[in-house]
Amino acid sequence: MKAVAHLVLVLLAIGSRPASAEDPLPSWNDTASKKAIVAFVERVTKEGSADFVPVPERIATFDNDGTLWAEQPVYVQILFVVDRVKALAPQHPEWRTKEPFASLLQGDLKAVAASGEAGIAELMAASHSGMTTDEFSQTVSDWLATARHPTTGKPFTSMVYQPMLELLDYLRAHGFKTFIVSGGGIEFMRPWTEKVYGIPPEQVVGTTGGLKLEMRDGQPVLVKLPTLVLNDDKEGKPVGIQRHIGRRPLAAFGNSDGDLAMLQWTTSGSGPRFALVVHHTDAEREWAYDRESRIGRLDKALDEANAKGWTIVSMKDDWKTIFPQ
Amino acid sequence: MKAVAHLVLVLLAIGSRPASAEDPLPSWNDTASKKAIVAFVERVTKEGSADFVPVPERIATFDNDGTLWAEQPVYVQILFVVDRVKALAPQHPEWRTKEPFASLLQGDLKAVAASGEAGIAELMAASHSGMTTDEFSQTVSDWLATARHPTTGKPFTSMVYQPMLELLDYLRAHGFKTFIVSGGGIEFMRPWTEKVYGIPPEQVVGTTGGLKLEMRDGQPVLVKLPTLVLNDDKEGKPVGIQRHIGRRPLAAFGNSDGDLAMLQWTTSGSGPRFALVVHHTDAEREWAYDRESRIGRLDKALDEANAKGWTIVSMKDDWKTIFPQ
Repeated sequence: MKAVAHLVLVLLAIGSRPASAEDPLPSWNDTASKKAIVAFVERVTKEGSADFVPVPERIATFDNDGTLWAEQPVYVQILFVVDRVKALAPQHPEWRTKEPFASLLQGDLKAVAASGEAGIAELMAASHSGMTTDEFSQTVSDWLATARHPTTGKPFTSMVYQPMLELLDYLRAHGFKTFIVSGGGIEFMRPWTEKVYGIPPEQVVGTTGGLKLEMRDGQPVLVKLPTLVLNDDKEGKPVGIQRHIGRRPLAAFGNSDGDLAMLQWTTSGSGPRFALVVHHTDAEREWAYDRESRIGRLDKALDEANAKGWTIVSMKDDWKTIFPQ
Repeated sequence: MKAVAHLVLVLLAIGSRPASAEDPLPSWNDTASKKAIVAFVERVTKEGSADFVPVPERIATFDNDGTLWAEQPVYVQILFVVDRVKALAPQHPEWRTKEPFASLLQGDLKAVAASGEAGIAELMAASHSGMTTDEFSQTVSDWLATARHPTTGKPFTSMVYQPMLELLDYLRAHGFKTFIVSGGGIEFMRPWTEKVYGIPPEQVVGTTGGLKLEMRDGQPVLVKLPTLVLNDDKEGKPVGIQRHIGRRPLAAFGNSDGDLAMLQWTTSGSGPRFALVVHHTDAEREWAYDRESRIGRLDKALDEANAKGWTIVSMKDDWKTIFPQ
């Protein structure tokens, strides 16, 4: 009974918290986007409502780059690749004359970009395979602790969107299970998503490489391979969702054409569904880009969001603050 | 405050339940196995204990065939394959003369077995690909509703182990997140694991085939492909755990050499870890088999369990009841 009594006190404390703490989305302006979110959540969580959805089916999937954290001027993981190749270069003298490594090491990122998908894949393999999963996780954590954004000078994990952090909390408080479904590397995100977003490793879906179990000094280790098991972008997102989650999301959140298939997959399920697109419209506080952007292009998904009445968040108009204080 | 008052009543009701409901593992005899389980759970969940493990890290992984439900005289999924090939045969007249389909349709399962891994793979592909994930899920549910075990005549979902159901509940009540990590097909298990084991689809890891997003009548569907993405057996189990869960289990439960790598991976983590092997020793109430069995062979894992002091459950001696009443 002691545990029960303690829980009672906790519940009473929650019940009597001040009214000022009542708005679960304080960084959202009181516009149509916020109203659409709240209306949907109330509709599917109200007991006895015709659209009530049981807790286990309340799956919410979030893209990461450009939806939960900033992706300009270039994806964070690309900056990680650049730093890793530089750090590993002393052990690879052959890179000095081998493209695209040579260009990267000379700081000619334009030439690196010109090496195309094949070149990027080589850099990814060099920086993301050959080590154990534990070693890679530590490398990511160490890098994030010291790396800084090229224009703001801030740590990348502080360039997450405060309104989206509140949205994650709000959904979880209403029984939703929140997942990341990102084109980013699954092992690149897992070391920090729990701390930053409250999303544990088992709820992170991302681009996935091969793994191999090996014995080293009598202990099993998992070694990262340069092979690709899932490209979790575009049509790969519904595949990743099915593979990892095994049911269709009730709500999905994205910001680019890379998320379109996920939003279509989500909204084509039966019953109420919710789709939201974050539109980067704030050149002063963040970045403004959409149809012509190379990073996070939002073109077809913007048309479809308009045509289908999905919620489109204008960062400039709908968000009071962008980044956590 | 109304919701709080309601919760208070619920908690008071829980707090005052009769003493007879106190044993969380009533189908377990009071032997060393039960004591080892309880001692481990108390050790890692007691606040202030040197071995305390925070809730998010309390990951428990369970093999399915032979650990949570019966696997003799043959894996349930093989019986599903046989029935599916028979059901699909009218649409495939060519199977009448094509092996291993012809032998299967003539009821010559010995010849089917003789077709080896390549033959079984063909049967798997024929019965597990070409349809959408929704269609496959429905087929599995329909089949399980009517299929019966060849010797007991019982539905397969009632041939689950009552002591393991209690163990799953007991672990969850102590903050563990329970996962299945099985050589069985991930899509074959997901339609029923939540209802039968309380394990939702997103916590099921299994052998996984390829998927392809297609548009049909303007709606996206996921079509099952005959390709293999993960063989979630033996060395594949730690790979599946890393891919889907992203952290090492605190406790793992298996019954065969197919689980050895998972048990090694689990126990080679730092801090307290728990490994348990279900030993099929009860020829009267279930089946008795181990080192020589073709299904669920327990040989190397039995040696290692003995050598390392893992908990070995004798179904005959440690379990009061095997199946739910």
